[in-house]
Amino acid sequence: MRDQWFVRGRTPMTKEEVRAVSIAKLDLTPGAVLYDVGAGTGSISIEASRQLAGGTVYAIERDPEALSLLEQNRARFGAEAVRLVPEEAPEAFAGLPAPTHAFVGGSGGRLEEILYGLREKNPRVRIVVNAAALETLGRLLAWLEKNGVEADLCALQASRGRVLGGYHLMEGMNPVYVAAFGGEERGPGL
Amino acid sequence: MRDQWFVRGRTPMTKEEVRAVSIAKLDLTPGAVLYDVGAGTGSISIEASRQLAGGTVYAIERDPEALSLLEQNRARFGAEAVRLVPEEAPEAFAGLPAPTHAFVGGSGGRLEEILYGLREKNPRVRIVVNAAALETLGRLLAWLEKNGVEADLCALQASRGRVLGGYHLMEGMNPVYVAAFGGEERGPGL
Amino acid sequence: MRDQWFVRGRTPMTKEEVRAVSIAKLDLTPGAVLYDVGAGTGSISIEASRQLAGGTVYAIERDPEALSLLEQNRARFGAEAVRLVPEEAPEAFAGLPAPTHAFVGGSGGRLEEILYGLREKNPRVRIVVNAAALETLGRLLAWLEKNGVEADLCALQASRGRVLGGYHLMEGMNPVYVAAFGGEERGPGL
Amino acid sequence: MRDQWFVRGRTPMTKEEVRAVSIAKLDLTPGAVLYDVGAGTGSISIEASRQLAGGTVYAIERDPEALSLLEQNRARFGAEAVRLVPEEAPEAFAGLPAPTHAFVGGSGGRLEEILYGLREKNPRVRIVVNAAALETLGRLLAWLEKNGVEADLCALQASRGRVLGGYHLMEGMNPVYVAAFGGEERGPGL
Repeated sequence: MRDQWFVRGRTPMTKEEVRAVSIAKLDLTPGAVLYDVGAGTGSISIEASRQLAGGTVYAIERDPEALSLLEQNRARFGAEAVRLVPEEAPEAFAGLPAPTHAFVGGSGGRLEEILYGLREKNPRVRIVVNAAALETLGRLLAWLEKNGVEADLCALQASRGRVLGGYHLMEGMNPVYVAAFGGEERGPGL
Repeated sequence: MRDQWFVRGRTPMTKEEVRAVSIAKLDLTPGAVLYDVGAGTGSISIEASRQLAGGTVYAIERDPEALSLLEQNRARFGAEAVRLVPEEAPEAFAGLPAPTHAFVGGSGGRLEEILYGLREKNPRVRIVVNAAALETLGRLLAWLEKNGVEADLCALQASRGRVLGGYHLMEGMNPVYVAAFGGEERGPGL
Repeated sequence: MRDQWFVRGRTPMTKEEVRAVSIAKLDLTPGAVLYDVGAGTGSISIEASRQLAGGTVYAIERDPEALSLLEQNRARFGAEAVRLVPEEAPEAFAGLPAPTHAFVGGSGGRLEEILYGLREKNPRVRIVVNAAALETLGRLLAWLEKNGVEADLCALQASRGRVLGGYHLMEGMNPVYVAAFGGEERGPGL
Repeated sequence: MRDQWFVRGRTPMTKEEVRAVSIAKLDLTPGAVLYDVGAGTGSISIEASRQLAGGTVYAIERDPEALSLLEQNRARFGAEAVRLVPEEAPEAFAGLPAPTHAFVGGSGGRLEEILYGLREKNPRVRIVVNAAALETLGRLLAWLEKNGVEADLCALQASRGRVLGGYHLMEGMNPVYVAAFGGEERGPGL
């Protein structure tokens, strides 16, 4: 899905290329229960909702402005599997069914609590974390080491073509780290 | 899907991050008819087949060694929507139903013919092309300009974490250009 | 040298990281005669002038606004080895001594003429070309192939840290191709 | 200077593009006293030595195999300004003159001690650190914050052209973070 399809405002949005890779690394399955933590404009929730036939996405977001955009985008795309949870994580997890998958795009400085909270709800939850800030990356790596978790880690640096006077110039996007870990046994045929 | 889930041999494979972005840019729809041109190991065909409920993927590949891997991978993942077409493109298109979507990962020096061939089968086909070689990129840009087609162009440079002596080192992958163009009117709710 | 040390205006400037790599690939020698073609703000001319003891840089630039910036920057840094040539390349080469080195940062659509012009002045000139536009890259590769020249080619994608609310975010710069070719026999001890 | 000009063995070497940017960020001055900490093959020492007229480079390296390569490379390039210091940093600093500049390419797990040691020798030393490992980057950022130092930080991701069957393929290099901080007041004309 194109970034420009979404209503955006000033809320940061996971960019298209990073969104595609992050959703792919979730390994969504039919009937999945996905938490989108720090859902922002809802781009991850909405794009992911198309790949979890019969499942549900809980878009967890505390910021009122982002929630308004999220609601608009959900309506715009008719994304009925996406449910808004207007609370802060990890407290927001309390009333929700256990997740099979979770995407953490924003953690408001509470990354460790969120990760522990997710694993408390389901020790085998599949988690994908995006880190744009180096400090978030550092905290994530420390958490992974402390908990003996080996993650699949990649960094994505995209650039996008822009036509200017008949020339294609590539514009650099901001690099983002994508870490994925946990989840049920998976692989060929699963 | 992880790269290591596929049987590979020496056949080049679209890498995981590029695969995710390329499939996302296809904007697959339920019932889609997807041509995977230069299907190689079949990683695109197989991962895409999970997102086109009721549709079909034609994995077009001329190389016998690649075809053998493709067959193994199809069986491994139980990807029943993937059909092997052991011919060279664009001749291979002749006996197939018109595509709604096409991915061109390899063109064997016949990129222009392949693009014309796809549009002949369906003028509104959605096409995604990967270009790793600068010469392929140049030919693609020339074709787009000649045919007055404006493409969505991005370049992806991923790196992957590797743990060595307790340190995470990032290993650079080869950059790939991804161009997407054509397709039915699309956007919110479509 | 830092980008912010230069007076800039709206004239495009070779960015610091690309400038460092481009100058390094010139393999400047004491007494070098360097042409800086499409000198813009003069950042290459000025930084390079510090590495060619006793040599001269001819900063060739046709745009009056850029020339004014160039003059200001030359004065600011006391770069006496830099001489302004307010003409268009390759015509500007006519009255100048033969170059031992040349940097082509801008070619105003006349890349091939410029490259031929440089080699006419000195068949063994060391040339470094920057290409931000894909079309420029394509023309460069075509020229290299036509003339049987094998170049050292690299692409640079830098990102720069920015501190925001106590977090380091990396901002992607635009990728640039750097090609280097020709020059006297060089290597260890030369 | 090209990577292939150096004798290498299995000792890791700062790659050409990263070397050029790192040396540029050192802002070397005539008569500089440069410490190259974890000098490895000596590529930084040797290339930098050409830019510090009348100055000296102390190539500090504890590994015997690397020292042997360093000695070979120094001889090969006739780099008389480079002096080998076969000890471990920061102890190696004890007998040396105070540095005006320092490059830290390898720290053997003792990054903080090395940085403190450098500033003890000269509180205004200009320091450039390379970090390939995310853990090294994390420790560097923590040290900078603890000491109230604001650094110029960039990440470099280069790729290099390789010709295969008439096509130019770009091969991704490993990304490296380059941080620069400290140093005398500098800028235009200095």
